[in-house]
Amino acid sequence: MTEADNPAVGSRSAGRNGRAQPDHGAAPAHTPSFHEMWRDLLPIGRDAASGGYRRFAWTGADADCRAWFRAQAESRGLTYELDRNGNQWAWLGDPTAGDAVVTGSHLDSVPDGGAFDGPLGVVSSFAALDGLRARGARPTRPLAIVNFGDEEGARFGLACVGSRLAAGQLTPDKAARLRDADGVSLPQAMERAGYDPEAIGADPERLARIGAFVELHVEQGRALADTPQAVGIASSIWPHGRWRFDFHGEANHAGTTRLQDRRDPMLTYATTVLAARKKARLTGALATFGKVAVEPNGVNAIPSLVRGWLDSRAPDQTTLDLVIAEIEKAAVERGERDGVDVRVTRESFTPVVEFGHALRDELGRLLGGDVPVLGTGAGHDAGILSGDVPTAMLFVRNPTGVSHSPAETAAEDDCLAGVIALTDVLEGLACR
Amino acid sequence: MTEADNPAVGSRSAGRNGRAQPDHGAAPAHTPSFHEMWRDLLPIGRDAASGGYRRFAWTGADADCRAWFRAQAESRGLTYELDRNGNQWAWLGDPTAGDAVVTGSHLDSVPDGGAFDGPLGVVSSFAALDGLRARGARPTRPLAIVNFGDEEGARFGLACVGSRLAAGQLTPDKAARLRDADGVSLPQAMERAGYDPEAIGADPERLARIGAFVELHVEQGRALADTPQAVGIASSIWPHGRWRFDFHGEANHAGTTRLQDRRDPMLTYATTVLAARKKARLTGALATFGKVAVEPNGVNAIPSLVRGWLDSRAPDQTTLDLVIAEIEKAAVERGERDGVDVRVTRESFTPVVEFGHALRDELGRLLGGDVPVLGTGAGHDAGILSGDVPTAMLFVRNPTGVSHSPAETAAEDDCLAGVIALTDVLEGLACR
Repeated sequence: MTEADNPAVGSRSAGRNGRAQPDHGAAPAHTPSFHEMWRDLLPIGRDAASGGYRRFAWTGADADCRAWFRAQAESRGLTYELDRNGNQWAWLGDPTAGDAVVTGSHLDSVPDGGAFDGPLGVVSSFAALDGLRARGARPTRPLAIVNFGDEEGARFGLACVGSRLAAGQLTPDKAARLRDADGVSLPQAMERAGYDPEAIGADPERLARIGAFVELHVEQGRALADTPQAVGIASSIWPHGRWRFDFHGEANHAGTTRLQDRRDPMLTYATTVLAARKKARLTGALATFGKVAVEPNGVNAIPSLVRGWLDSRAPDQTTLDLVIAEIEKAAVERGERDGVDVRVTRESFTPVVEFGHALRDELGRLLGGDVPVLGTGAGHDAGILSGDVPTAMLFVRNPTGVSHSPAETAAEDDCLAGVIALTDVLEGLACR
Repeated sequence: MTEADNPAVGSRSAGRNGRAQPDHGAAPAHTPSFHEMWRDLLPIGRDAASGGYRRFAWTGADADCRAWFRAQAESRGLTYELDRNGNQWAWLGDPTAGDAVVTGSHLDSVPDGGAFDGPLGVVSSFAALDGLRARGARPTRPLAIVNFGDEEGARFGLACVGSRLAAGQLTPDKAARLRDADGVSLPQAMERAGYDPEAIGADPERLARIGAFVELHVEQGRALADTPQAVGIASSIWPHGRWRFDFHGEANHAGTTRLQDRRDPMLTYATTVLAARKKARLTGALATFGKVAVEPNGVNAIPSLVRGWLDSRAPDQTTLDLVIAEIEKAAVERGERDGVDVRVTRESFTPVVEFGHALRDELGRLLGGDVPVLGTGAGHDAGILSGDVPTAMLFVRNPTGVSHSPAETAAEDDCLAGVIALTDVLEGLACR
C-alpha cells in the first residue's frame, strides 16, 4: 500500500463514531491499546527464516508501516500530514500554532532488525497521548507524533534521511545520488512508492513549528540493565560515521598462482578488520566491519576487489579522528606488503550531539531526580534535529543490550513504564 | 538458445555444399579458421563493465557457447552428440568403434574469468583436426572433440560437474542437491535450459569408447613463462578441495554494543584468512579465501554469520591434510576468544592426479625431448577422467601467469604453437 497524497496534504479525520473529533481532550470511543498496536505491527516486514525485520525505506513493508501510522492517527481523530520528505505527522491541536511538543521515532529497520528499535517510540507516543486523554489533561500547546522516514539507512546507506532532508543536512542533489544495492536511486524508489521526489528538501517552516522534540527509544546497550531503573535520559550521542575501504588487488586463479605472485586484497582486508578492533579497544571507541562486498567472489578466484564498510564511533571527535587515522594507516601499510591499493571514502558523518541541558534537566524533574543520564553511540533523528530545536531522548531498559538483531527485546513492564514516563513528560511540557 | 535433443541423439550433418561428409579425410569446402572461431566466441557472456566472462552452467551465455560448439561440429561434417550429462561431443569416425583419441576442454567460466581458460582447448581441438585434414593424415582410430559442461563450478559450487557425473564421481542424488545462489537446483537449471535432468548419471559406456584423452589448456601459472618453450606437458594435478567455514556469532548494534559484549564473527574470519596464508606459506601449499557471505551484511550491524570458503591445494595429500587441520585449529582457537562458533564443511575434494607415464612419455616423444613437464594446482576434467582412461594434458605458455581474471592472456604465436603440438599429438596417436 502506498499513499499518493504527496506533497503534504492535511486530513482531519472523523472518528469511528462518525462525529468530528475535538482538537483537544477526550479520545474517540475506541482507540487501539498499546498491546493492540504492538500486535498489529509485529507481522509487518518480518522475515520468516530469521525472525528479523526488513522494513526498508519505500518498500512494501515500509508502506504497510506507514498505512498503520495513518490509521492510528485517524482512529484518534488526529490531523494527519505527510511532509515533503516522506515523514508522517499526527497532530493534536493546530499544526501551525507553533511551540509544539513533538514525540515519535521511526518504523523502518536494519536488515534482520528487532521489533523495538523505532516502533517502541512510535507506539509509546500514541499510547502516551491516549494516557494524557485518560488523565483528562488539557494541552495548552499543540502536540504531534512523528514517524521519520528511512532512519536506519538500510537501503541507501545513509541513516536519518527523512530528518536530514528536513533539517537541510542532506541536499536534494546528494539525495538523488543515493542508490540501493540494485542501482535504484532514492527518487526512483520514492516515485515507485507513489511519492513525488521533486518536493524533497529543507523544510525550515515545519521545524519552526516545534518547541520541543522528545524521542523515546529502546536502549541499545546495557547501561540501564544493571540499575533498578526502567527509563533513562540521554546526555549525548557520540560522533559517528561510515567509511568505505576499497582494497584493490588482482584477480587470479587460487589454485595456480604462487603466493609471492599474488595481490590478494582479502589479506589486507583481514588485517584491517583486526586493526580496527585493536585501535578501538585501546582508545575506548567502537569500530566494526559489518558489511563486505567481494569481486568476483568465486571460491577459486583471488579477489580483484574487497570492499569493507567501517562503522566507528567515539565519545569525542579527537578520539574518533585518531581511531580512523590509525585504522587507515594499518590498512595502507599492509596493502603495501600485499600489493594492494587502499582507498578510504567517508560516506557519512554525524558530529557529537550534546542534548540541551535545559530540556534534559526539565525531563529529569518531571520524572524524578534519580533517573539515570546516559550517552549512546547510536545515531537518532533526535540528534539530527538537535541543531534546530530543543531535543531530548528517553531510553527504555534493554535487559540483554542486544540491538539490530531479531533477539532485541525489552520487558513488557519496562515498555509500559516508558509509556508512563513519556505521558508524564508530555503532560509536564504541554499541559501546564 | 538451447538444445532439446537430450538424451544423446547423434546427428550426422551434411556439409555446406550439401554433400554427405566422409568419416575421415578431407574437410568441407570452408571451415572456420582458428581466428574466426576465436572471434566468434569472444563476445559470448562477456561483461561490459569488467571485461571478464560470465559463462555459467545452463545460463543463456552457456547456451550460446553450446550452439557455437554444435555449429563447429556441423560445419566440419562431424557427428554431433550431446550426452546424458550435458557434455557435447563431435566425432570424426565411428563413435562406437572404441579406442578413440579424444581431445577438448570446456567453454564455461568463473565469474569475470578470462577468454582462454577452457575455450583455448576447444578452439585448438577443432583447429588441430583441421590441421590433420590439411596434412592429409588418415586417422586409423576414431577422433572426438568434447566440451565438458560446468567445469568451473561457478554456479553450483562444485567443479567438473559434467565429467564427475560421467565418471560416477558425482551421484545424481548429490547433484540434485546442488543449488545456485538463487536457490535454483542443478536439475531445475538443466530443465529450464531444455535438458532432461532425469537422464544424468554415470556413463561408463561412453567413457569405455575412449582410448586416450588429451586436454590442451592455457597454463595458469608462470612455469613456462621463463622458458623458451611455448608448450609443456602436465605431470600431475595437486590434491585440492573447497572447505566452507561457518562463523556463527551474534548480530548486534555496531554503535552501542560494548566490545566486551560482542560475539563478532568477522574477527574470527579475519584471523582465519591470515592464518590460512601463513600455514600455506610455511608448507609450500596454497590456501585462499576468495568468497565470503555475511549476514545481515549491514554497515551498522555486527554480523550474526560470516561464511568464508577456503580453496586449498598442496603437492601431496599429507601436506594438504596438515594445512587444513592447522587452519581449522587457528579458527577454533580464535573463535573461543570471540565467542564465535566455527563449523567447517568439506564441500568438494579431488585427490592427487598423477597422469599416466606411458601416455605422457609418448607425448614427450611426439613433441620432441625437451618439452617441459610441470605440475599444476588447478583441477581439470582430465583429472576426473584419469581414473578411467589414459589421460594427458598440454599447457600453453601464459606470459603473466594471470588466470581466472579478465587480464588472462596468451601470445598468439604460443596459441598457434599449441595447435601444432596438438595436431602432432593427434596424428601420432590416431593416424599411425
